[in-house]
Amino acid sequence: MNEYLRDRKQLIEKNLDSLMLAADGPMATHIESMRYSLFVGGKRIRPILTLAAAESLTADPQLLAEALVPACAIELIHTYSLIHDDLPAMDDDDLRRGKPTNHKVYGEANAILAGDGLLTLAFELLARPSSLLNAAQQLQIIGLVAQAAGPFGMVGGQHLDIENENNTISFDTLKTIHRCKTGCLITCSLQAGAICGGADKVQLAKLSEYGAHIGLAFQIVDDLLDATATTAQLGKTAGSDESRGKATYPALFGIEETRQKARDATAAAISSIEGFDLKADPLRNLADYICSRTF
Amino acid sequence: MNEYLRDRKQLIEKNLDSLMLAADGPMATHIESMRYSLFVGGKRIRPILTLAAAESLTADPQLLAEALVPACAIELIHTYSLIHDDLPAMDDDDLRRGKPTNHKVYGEANAILAGDGLLTLAFELLARPSSLLNAAQQLQIIGLVAQAAGPFGMVGGQHLDIENENNTISFDTLKTIHRCKTGCLITCSLQAGAICGGADKVQLAKLSEYGAHIGLAFQIVDDLLDATATTAQLGKTAGSDESRGKATYPALFGIEETRQKARDATAAAISSIEGFDLKADPLRNLADYICSRTF
Repeated sequence: MNEYLRDRKQLIEKNLDSLMLAADGPMATHIESMRYSLFVGGKRIRPILTLAAAESLTADPQLLAEALVPACAIELIHTYSLIHDDLPAMDDDDLRRGKPTNHKVYGEANAILAGDGLLTLAFELLARPSSLLNAAQQLQIIGLVAQAAGPFGMVGGQHLDIENENNTISFDTLKTIHRCKTGCLITCSLQAGAICGGADKVQLAKLSEYGAHIGLAFQIVDDLLDATATTAQLGKTAGSDESRGKATYPALFGIEETRQKARDATAAAISSIEGFDLKADPLRNLADYICSRTF
Repeated sequence: MNEYLRDRKQLIEKNLDSLMLAADGPMATHIESMRYSLFVGGKRIRPILTLAAAESLTADPQLLAEALVPACAIELIHTYSLIHDDLPAMDDDDLRRGKPTNHKVYGEANAILAGDGLLTLAFELLARPSSLLNAAQQLQIIGLVAQAAGPFGMVGGQHLDIENENNTISFDTLKTIHRCKTGCLITCSLQAGAICGGADKVQLAKLSEYGAHIGLAFQIVDDLLDATATTAQLGKTAGSDESRGKATYPALFGIEETRQKARDATAAAISSIEGFDLKADPLRNLADYICSRTF
């Protein structure tokens, strides 16, 4: 698994670098600020899931190359969401991946614009002429990405998260926050890869289901890490959920039951793609990898 | 002209209302905050230009109806840009269209998210299945809109504008700021309408040229209004460009020469579409209307 992750991460970062603009000309600082957050680190889980979803359906190297564009676009959107979430008016975080957050380096105005620029650029990439996807497939991906990132997806999830700070919330609300804030973009990472791999409707539905379960596992593990790891281990302020009175799985269920829920979600993800052949092994291993981050 | 403007504005606002989500459910406040800025007022110049561009090429009522979707999407993007520009970290404005700015009503966090939500929703609208445009036309519109709104367009323009506050800048830099910050989205309003109207390459180029000139005229007039009108007339703080040390046409050329430049840009816009028939009269009248806002 480690070799697979390393290899795909390298491929994605090489493509992010060539797809991103060069930091020169009048917009140099703007582009530099986007590049800073894009290359400050990160596991590249979402784009790796896009590639693995495409690989689960086809071994055609050209179709896999085509999946790199939506993979990178989704990483741009993920990066923008981190920049905006870290802003003083939002979570007010100084550290991300062990480095100062975007607004700490470039100031608030530039950080807001870096996020806006990355989000817009993501859609520009998704609309670029493709040699292998047809226009209808590209439109389908754009629609899914926009829904996942929009008011009923990631942005709405962040809204709910902030609205419910210091509130006692129900398990249902917690699930909605997690599904919107994290789950939707992870699910659409799988869907974009599925479409690049030429998925039929059943395969697309199964990979979406895998995405929903793995997205939940991912968020549960994130909650656990925030509660149990140190700031040095996380590269961001540990225990910040608790200090902000945020609803989390450990706060609702305790550490042990939360661990079991992460394992259950991982098992559910793997069984969603039961009928897939050996080409889906990277997806199966990724599920285990995501779950094992805590244990 | 007034009847045309009133009628098209009504059509656009009716469609904005039906395309926008209803403010209920868990995301109610988020949607309400987007609706607040979307319906707080505005001349709807950009979407009217989209409709007028489509109308300059076809009288087919179905194609005109199809142009309403990109028209509204562009208005969503314009609204998001105003919300983010008004933030305390950016221009720090309390008033917009005579009403409190978004962050004054909903707080900074919600205002940032309202902008993010509107931008993302715009791309969702542009990717929705269309009964008349083919997927390639929709993709072309999405690409143009993303470029116009992105790092080398509107977002980049706002970056340059903020970076150059209190700097003595050259006329070239002022032109770049205006072209990126205002011109690009206005040009793409025309391009989107042209594509909906079935423009060929030459027609698309001519309508783009009209857009570039009218975008310049629009920004020159905005500069003039900021320098000469009262806060009550503007619905936003008058004289704010000067008090922030912003580069403007009146600061560089004085009021009279600036007025002449607005007239020149308007004339250039009208001559870009010289070969168009009577169906382009709304575009010709719109050019005069935009210029006459000052005089």
